[in-house]
Amino acid sequence: MAIITLTTDFGHKDHFVGAIKGTILNNLPEVNVVDISHAVSPFNIQECAYILKNAYQNFPEGTVHIVGVDSELSPENQHIVVQVNGQFIISANNGVISLITSESTPDKIMEIDIPKLNLSSFPVLNVFVEVACHISRGGKLEVIGKPFEQLKELKEFEPRITNNGNSIVGNVIYIDNYGNVITNIQRGLVEAYRNGREFEIIARTNKIRNIHNSYNGIINYELDRTQRKGPGDALALFNSAGYVELAIYKSDLKTVGGASTLLGLNYRDTVTINFL
Amino acid sequence: MAIITLTTDFGHKDHFVGAIKGTILNNLPEVNVVDISHAVSPFNIQECAYILKNAYQNFPEGTVHIVGVDSELSPENQHIVVQVNGQFIISANNGVISLITSESTPDKIMEIDIPKLNLSSFPVLNVFVEVACHISRGGKLEVIGKPFEQLKELKEFEPRITNNGNSIVGNVIYIDNYGNVITNIQRGLVEAYRNGREFEIIARTNKIRNIHNSYNGIINYELDRTQRKGPGDALALFNSAGYVELAIYKSDLKTVGGASTLLGLNYRDTVTINFL
Amino acid sequence: MAIITLTTDFGHKDHFVGAIKGTILNNLPEVNVVDISHAVSPFNIQECAYILKNAYQNFPEGTVHIVGVDSELSPENQHIVVQVNGQFIISANNGVISLITSESTPDKIMEIDIPKLNLSSFPVLNVFVEVACHISRGGKLEVIGKPFEQLKELKEFEPRITNNGNSIVGNVIYIDNYGNVITNIQRGLVEAYRNGREFEIIARTNKIRNIHNSYNGIINYELDRTQRKGPGDALALFNSAGYVELAIYKSDLKTVGGASTLLGLNYRDTVTINFL
Repeated sequence: MAIITLTTDFGHKDHFVGAIKGTILNNLPEVNVVDISHAVSPFNIQECAYILKNAYQNFPEGTVHIVGVDSELSPENQHIVVQVNGQFIISANNGVISLITSESTPDKIMEIDIPKLNLSSFPVLNVFVEVACHISRGGKLEVIGKPFEQLKELKEFEPRITNNGNSIVGNVIYIDNYGNVITNIQRGLVEAYRNGREFEIIARTNKIRNIHNSYNGIINYELDRTQRKGPGDALALFNSAGYVELAIYKSDLKTVGGASTLLGLNYRDTVTINFL
Repeated sequence: MAIITLTTDFGHKDHFVGAIKGTILNNLPEVNVVDISHAVSPFNIQECAYILKNAYQNFPEGTVHIVGVDSELSPENQHIVVQVNGQFIISANNGVISLITSESTPDKIMEIDIPKLNLSSFPVLNVFVEVACHISRGGKLEVIGKPFEQLKELKEFEPRITNNGNSIVGNVIYIDNYGNVITNIQRGLVEAYRNGREFEIIARTNKIRNIHNSYNGIINYELDRTQRKGPGDALALFNSAGYVELAIYKSDLKTVGGASTLLGLNYRDTVTINFL
Repeated sequence: MAIITLTTDFGHKDHFVGAIKGTILNNLPEVNVVDISHAVSPFNIQECAYILKNAYQNFPEGTVHIVGVDSELSPENQHIVVQVNGQFIISANNGVISLITSESTPDKIMEIDIPKLNLSSFPVLNVFVEVACHISRGGKLEVIGKPFEQLKELKEFEPRITNNGNSIVGNVIYIDNYGNVITNIQRGLVEAYRNGREFEIIARTNKIRNIHNSYNGIINYELDRTQRKGPGDALALFNSAGYVELAIYKSDLKTVGGASTLLGLNYRDTVTINFL
């Protein structure tokens, strides 16, 4: 059964997602429509990229991913389809594709060109769904567009190496449901510059000297409960997506707070790793 | 595969939706249960109607739509099934059907009458699911009820023509995920009274003199970026559902605000179009 | 078609749920993945148990339920699979299973033991999904683990009988989407101790003398509308899950408030029934 996923900033209340699913089912009765997220912050390209980048490759080959964030067509925001890693992504050319595919080279990028469909304030419904169904039925990309070579790049979101290779300066790119703060510093980069040295992670006034591989990496289970670290303690880990993440053990933003609130970190804030 | 949709005010946390889906799958293994919305404001009939009205016709013929808002059975709130435009809607007789079908005439309205099922504080699970599965299996409406002729009408939600046909006075009926404010004034009504005249839309102290067909209708792409309108600017458009909508370009309620907060508009507030 | 459900505290924004669904579909193309809830409060075992307990038995026999709350493996938090009432639940041994199965005896409890999979900060993706797919394909539990006998019990969440059998002292265990307050006092317990007596329910300074079977049980439809009870009035009922629930008729937490805010009740607060 064909699979079409949705990653949007439409939220969970409005009719948008229902209208899209109904239209897909009307075009393609045997299809599995999967919600990746509808809670991307409105027009937030980087957040959208982080979510989709860490989900899309888990899907079977041939899956079609629709990106419904900042998708209105304009002379500066073309509609495109990208074939990458055996998957298809339909999006506007707003920079999200360059972030998602930063570690892969797309096999094909096509500009969508279906003149009768182009005017709409709801292009995900009126354009992307038709393209997604076409691809899901095994249709060729050449039928719905032409090769495209002006993929918008968002370069400002990469960490920098400073201080003669002794520091990595990154930024907060995502804050998750627990208030955990994810930076754009990936495990490979840390390992490339570390060379076995000790280090400290600096985020505002906070200093952390270990990076674990799991949240309970800070707990020493051989100690008595009263002597252990535990809920409320800060830690750093390489998260399951491979990024340096700052977390509070067993945090809850609505009650005790999370790393974002307790460490005072917000989107784009600087996080530095100094090798000692 | 049969399709059953859910539009409710159950929210996303509680067990209600899970219990419903489990029960449907237990009755009807080959079924596609689609969430339209579970974030209708509690007991808000008009909001529910706007959402379902703009989603249900996108679904394939024969789809069964369950409405789980204000659905407890009472002498004044009967359980009904409506057949309209090739679709089925199961709901309580609380006014939502008259709003959804304001531009269509239902083919059939039946009162649900299955005595053994009538007592429950969770009628969507105990009554509506059984009816939905019956219809999805191809069962006749006559088996589960009898013709019904007292459909509750909610007439107060229609725009008025005033000032000798020179003004349309509407109201805010919906606020979407971006804070965009949707009125009950539809494109056809504006066109019927406009007669080629200029106009101004008055909403509190705001005045808008254009209605676009897309959000970026306010952007003049021939101008340099610094001279254009852009994020933060107010506009009006006929939205994809055909209603006059007031929006802020690229709004975000959690950060910069949206039309509802920046223009100070809330549910039921007046929006007037004066033809000049 | 196999069914796998998800009950987690992952929220609706992050990539976690999308990554899980993609991986399941990659392992098992013909599967129905059903979201029960992703809005459990972070690490809240009791809330998770209430939700899943009241949803899982509605699913067809053989359904596999994944619990993604507090699931990191540790010496004190083993990964287990429980077979109960014809269903399978995959979870960490954090107490949630003892609450879900408090009225049923599990047929089988196995500790998951797949050494190559054990290290991860995202065990739902890396361990539970593989186990769920194995079971959904008809695989034996013995292949993925060994019998387990140390199920963690959370006994503190049970109501107490006091005052020589004249009082039941319970606690708030859940607050739903309407702000309705659910206690851990079940219908059977009330009936066992009532013996036909009158009673009063005491919750803070509030006193309620009836328990209805539906929300509109407080409305006398024979009275004129202006003389009836209605929106804003407090009531108690045996809810559809069989628990004593305190509610406000037609409440909305975002506008008029609900039982939790208007009666001042929060998680773990005491609710007492005194038989007179």
